[in-house]
Amino acid sequence: MENRTEIASLGEFRLIEHLTKNIEFQNASSILGVGDDAAVIDHFGKQTVVTTDLLLEGIHFDLMYTPLKHLGYKSVVVNLSDVYAMNAQPTQITLSIGISNRFSVEALNEFYEGVYVACEKYGVDLIGGDTSSSLKGFVISVTALGEVVPDQLVKRSTAQKGDLICVSGDLGAAFLGLTLMEREKKIYQENPNIQPDLENESYIVGRLLKPEARKDIIQFFADNNILPTSMMDVSDGISSEVLHLCQQSNLGCKLYEEKLPIADLTRQAAFKFGLDPTVCALNGGEDYELVFTLKQEDHDKIVLNEEISVIGYMTDVEEGQKIMTKGGNLHPLTAQGWNAFNQ
Amino acid sequence: MENRTEIASLGEFRLIEHLTKNIEFQNASSILGVGDDAAVIDHFGKQTVVTTDLLLEGIHFDLMYTPLKHLGYKSVVVNLSDVYAMNAQPTQITLSIGISNRFSVEALNEFYEGVYVACEKYGVDLIGGDTSSSLKGFVISVTALGEVVPDQLVKRSTAQKGDLICVSGDLGAAFLGLTLMEREKKIYQENPNIQPDLENESYIVGRLLKPEARKDIIQFFADNNILPTSMMDVSDGISSEVLHLCQQSNLGCKLYEEKLPIADLTRQAAFKFGLDPTVCALNGGEDYELVFTLKQEDHDKIVLNEEISVIGYMTDVEEGQKIMTKGGNLHPLTAQGWNAFNQ
Repeated sequence: MENRTEIASLGEFRLIEHLTKNIEFQNASSILGVGDDAAVIDHFGKQTVVTTDLLLEGIHFDLMYTPLKHLGYKSVVVNLSDVYAMNAQPTQITLSIGISNRFSVEALNEFYEGVYVACEKYGVDLIGGDTSSSLKGFVISVTALGEVVPDQLVKRSTAQKGDLICVSGDLGAAFLGLTLMEREKKIYQENPNIQPDLENESYIVGRLLKPEARKDIIQFFADNNILPTSMMDVSDGISSEVLHLCQQSNLGCKLYEEKLPIADLTRQAAFKFGLDPTVCALNGGEDYELVFTLKQEDHDKIVLNEEISVIGYMTDVEEGQKIMTKGGNLHPLTAQGWNAFNQ
Repeated sequence: MENRTEIASLGEFRLIEHLTKNIEFQNASSILGVGDDAAVIDHFGKQTVVTTDLLLEGIHFDLMYTPLKHLGYKSVVVNLSDVYAMNAQPTQITLSIGISNRFSVEALNEFYEGVYVACEKYGVDLIGGDTSSSLKGFVISVTALGEVVPDQLVKRSTAQKGDLICVSGDLGAAFLGLTLMEREKKIYQENPNIQPDLENESYIVGRLLKPEARKDIIQFFADNNILPTSMMDVSDGISSEVLHLCQQSNLGCKLYEEKLPIADLTRQAAFKFGLDPTVCALNGGEDYELVFTLKQEDHDKIVLNEEISVIGYMTDVEEGQKIMTKGGNLHPLTAQGWNAFNQ
């Protein structure tokens, strides 16, 4: 960044105008956007889904290794992932930010650039928000709205005994990306002359810093007349999420360690850090994949999609929540979850 | 508070369950609430309005003199005020909070108690949110949704030349409440043995700490077949808001100082602090009244409502934005706005 424009030199209203002036709506339902007390949405007979996420500097992201453009992109994507997890299409977002004066207008431009790239890629409209100063730290709050034909909505609580448990993509990479970046940060802090060693690590780092929401999976369901019996997105780790599906559907489950999808690059990174790839896959967070259950008779509909893995099935609640190890032992499934790694 | 329960002793999911377990929906449009990836809303042919506000400790509120219950109440109300300002009825909110470990579960209970009192009073449903830890400070983000029959929506940009400029309630009290509390805080910090002198000040303090949104005015419009030509809520000060209506409607205006509604208690407080009541009314923020424009022929419909004051009228943009003082001088209307007082 060559120039630095102080935010105070614009003032709140000119700053908002500067950041939002190029918005062009992509959804017919977006009637009125930034610039009034509230935005307005029409619905044309569909239901709206609403989800919101708070991202706080020092808790959810570290600006030492998170480019602002990526952060803007990710702030949108993590919310869209929740909308897709309802089998809905995201349509609008609101974005509120709190910023201290250590940020320049140019820095905010980068953040918003990422926001707009995500909006364009996923076809959503930024329709409102709030811009505030903060005493310290960067505060981001995104609310996403989406639409769904009522009988296509997929909740967490409607899985049935015998349903297949499926997951999109692969697991554990974002956690290993985080482990790597935290290690590099520590090395840098101890000796700023050492350059980061990120060779061959672009996959896990990319999964951490620039995740994608699984729009393609929702499209695949629509194209192939598939309606999952339950679904949620994987933000805290697949074990935690499957336990949510079990609890809310009042079921047990049986997962198979050998079926967990783990990318080769993730496996290599895990070995490099002396970590068990299975533990990373089960408990690592921020993968933003979709975990869903499917009637057994729908198995043929997904078998050719290489982006979907069957990892187990739902059982009676009395059988508990279990995972079968590669060695053939049946263990209770526990949710260490994302937080466990941060403590 | 006699007991202190650490938030960590519950964990995120049990904390959310604890805080949201008693929710009962008041709106038929609230289909699915807390506990899934997203909430679901039906619309029955109406349009949705969406607004969001970020409230940050140290910027928007000071916990030294803000009871948490009041803060919860206010966090909801300031968003509903934006929904009413579109001539819409609020129906749902999402609430995200970021909290450091200096807050106990009991403290959060108080905050949520205020949230639920506001939800019940205004008939809105809490349908979702996010709960996060923060490194420092209390972060609150509320998104409010409301509904409106499309032809009843009132924007900022649709005022016409000759329209009357009206405002609900009275102005300047919240700013004087803030001035008082900041003074008492300073005295307390210098000498903790001095008790705060808040006698006779409950009106201005109440306007600051527990504002109300003007649901009654929107109901009055509906009951009397009144459709304002433009409207917004007064959060930054009436001068700033009238300038917004002028700018977005491409008009000028003429306000009359003598018509500004100022409560006697506000006037007395202003004199006590050596402040000009008119300046407080024009530039003080957080009144959460409604400012709106009305066709002249609708004047008879509002004249008997003592909660509505006509304070001027819209003019050609060439005539500029002006205020006529009590002394008969015509001055340009300027927006010092809320921020000016904080600097």
